[in-house]
Amino acid sequence: MLMNEARLFDRMKSEGMDAIVATAPENVTYSSGFWAMSQWIRRGPQAYVLTSAPGRGPQAVIASTGTLDLIGDQDVSIRDVRRFGFFAIERDESVELDEGEKRVAEICESEDYGDPVSALVAAIKDRNLESAVIGVDEIGITPQYYDKLVEVLPRATIRRAASVFRHARAIKTAEEVRRLRRSARVAELSIDAALAVARAGISERELAYAFHAKTISEGGMPVLGVICTGPRSAMSSGQPGDRILRAGDVIRFDVGGRCLHYRADIARIAVVGSASEKVKKYHAAIRAGLLRAYELIKPGVKTADVFNAVVETVRKEGMPHYRRNHVGHGIGLDGYDAPNLTPGSTEVFEEGNCICVETPYYEMGFAGLQVEDTMHVTRDGVESLMSTSSELRLVG
Amino acid sequence: MLMNEARLFDRMKSEGMDAIVATAPENVTYSSGFWAMSQWIRRGPQAYVLTSAPGRGPQAVIASTGTLDLIGDQDVSIRDVRRFGFFAIERDESVELDEGEKRVAEICESEDYGDPVSALVAAIKDRNLESAVIGVDEIGITPQYYDKLVEVLPRATIRRAASVFRHARAIKTAEEVRRLRRSARVAELSIDAALAVARAGISERELAYAFHAKTISEGGMPVLGVICTGPRSAMSSGQPGDRILRAGDVIRFDVGGRCLHYRADIARIAVVGSASEKVKKYHAAIRAGLLRAYELIKPGVKTADVFNAVVETVRKEGMPHYRRNHVGHGIGLDGYDAPNLTPGSTEVFEEGNCICVETPYYEMGFAGLQVEDTMHVTRDGVESLMSTSSELRLVG
Repeated sequence: MLMNEARLFDRMKSEGMDAIVATAPENVTYSSGFWAMSQWIRRGPQAYVLTSAPGRGPQAVIASTGTLDLIGDQDVSIRDVRRFGFFAIERDESVELDEGEKRVAEICESEDYGDPVSALVAAIKDRNLESAVIGVDEIGITPQYYDKLVEVLPRATIRRAASVFRHARAIKTAEEVRRLRRSARVAELSIDAALAVARAGISERELAYAFHAKTISEGGMPVLGVICTGPRSAMSSGQPGDRILRAGDVIRFDVGGRCLHYRADIARIAVVGSASEKVKKYHAAIRAGLLRAYELIKPGVKTADVFNAVVETVRKEGMPHYRRNHVGHGIGLDGYDAPNLTPGSTEVFEEGNCICVETPYYEMGFAGLQVEDTMHVTRDGVESLMSTSSELRLVG
Repeated sequence: MLMNEARLFDRMKSEGMDAIVATAPENVTYSSGFWAMSQWIRRGPQAYVLTSAPGRGPQAVIASTGTLDLIGDQDVSIRDVRRFGFFAIERDESVELDEGEKRVAEICESEDYGDPVSALVAAIKDRNLESAVIGVDEIGITPQYYDKLVEVLPRATIRRAASVFRHARAIKTAEEVRRLRRSARVAELSIDAALAVARAGISERELAYAFHAKTISEGGMPVLGVICTGPRSAMSSGQPGDRILRAGDVIRFDVGGRCLHYRADIARIAVVGSASEKVKKYHAAIRAGLLRAYELIKPGVKTADVFNAVVETVRKEGMPHYRRNHVGHGIGLDGYDAPNLTPGSTEVFEEGNCICVETPYYEMGFAGLQVEDTMHVTRDGVESLMSTSSELRLVG
């Protein structure tokens, strides 16, 4: 189970919601395990999951007929699936279908509601929720369909609810932690693969190919690949280009793909040959900041306090001019889950948070330096999900 | 230049729009060449491009301070860049910056508008457009920011405008056709790479690794990777799994990454060893449908007429039961641009359309068969962007 049901229900109750509708790909997968390809690779295709408050009826999936094959193949446990749209799926009657195929055949014989909102409304009415307070995740539904939903349910109270999912997703279930650990591991193995080819004369693109190819061979899909070298490493979102590595260059990795649908986001620094005194000093300072976070983070601690302590540590350890907008964020199905490690945040760490703590530094004309680890907040502290050290690595 | 300026301005005029705001990643890149990483890899981060009608002022980019490095590195030609949000970018004063870095440094010294809508509104007011009709692409802007824009510009008329961009994007500029050709080529090379390892005993995942690794080594990023075998190939959105290839299996590729930001979406069928009579007959039928499209498509022809002719051809050539919801769609920055090749479409082919024509067939218990080519509509016909044939391929 990916979804933290108790936490979602709790927040729905405090918000007075009788039901909630997931529409963004992250929230659809979170609520149901259903990975509806089309909405993950484009903006526009609609797939929803309706989750009622306890006692108000079972969950329902709303899916286009063309994505039903994934319901069968992924063995989605929600039994109430409403489909919309014509999509031809034929059947060889001489062959015994497997369980997933039988399920697809069965759903294909159910009513075609024509469009996603009509299918959703049918599920809502079957649960007697047409006068209820219904939270709708506003991220994945198109504004036109949101308007239509409000129009066809005049007695319901429709409220935006992406923040309710964000709240629930902040505390990971055991299965989510397992997936995040695997995703972080794949990112580390991919950095190792890139560093295995790193030497003077190699281009940024070649480093990136080695990185992403390893992510793929480990079962992940590339997402974030900020891999730049020398002065170009100072670009926070820099994309790998034609620059050729030279002795003394910094290589900055701010990287992570998606594995089992869960994101990775980690950062490491390597230097070709030997590092300058400035690189060594600054890297040690930002790393001291990261290590300070390990000492401080535990349930009940304010994220803003950790922000302040981490920045203060980096300043004391050799970079008095260090400034930063945040030193980390949650991670999960999305790359930026709650909580935020910002100076203005009012959030508090809770057991089960999975977070990326980072202390990046970007100096044009010099380089970018960054360390970023993924951590899991436990009952009385924090557990690293990393297998590699954040120390400066020398290659080539 | 990616944007078809004349066509965009034309539609803005007929819709009575004085200005239009791109907010979805595809439309931001389309309007400006600016690829703002954060909005491409997540939903939520905001980046906009304001384009005024002729004579109403120059374009403006609205970008978070943390993405300005990409404005410099990508040499975005729009000079009016408004930034929002604190993000620390330091500078080594002892080093002469390059042109891109200097530009970043300069924009960093300009006003921080705090949030994207405030930055956008400043650009709107500088163009005296606060009482104008402003189209806003509703796909990338969060509903909260859309509401805020309406609130802070009470005298303006704000209208949803994603359809205006979709209309403009349907006719490709020469640079777009070049990129689509390259992206299609990378997809073909990636299929070749997968087929080079295909033989009995190999898993679907191994085929997919070979496919995506080639996409990456050719400079693309993986997006669509429907690569399934045997009866699993009947799943329209099927994802590569542990199934092991056997003699006689169909391998269905419905695939394509992103290259130079442009999508590929092509389909090919291979068989391990020798193909059954049914596979040969059905493949020939769907291929005849695809080839019929080449004969028919030219400017002025209705897309619905091509749909009907293609389906009719497949039926006549050996699959009288063939049914389909569409036989193709446009392609560009998005995987589904206009026009649609559907029975209900009122669209007409125009010179400059780039389209994917496809005739998929899914039969549970048997297999999925599909051919899909990317084509460019020319003055008097259609040009294939493919380098490989859609014939059935035998491997292993």
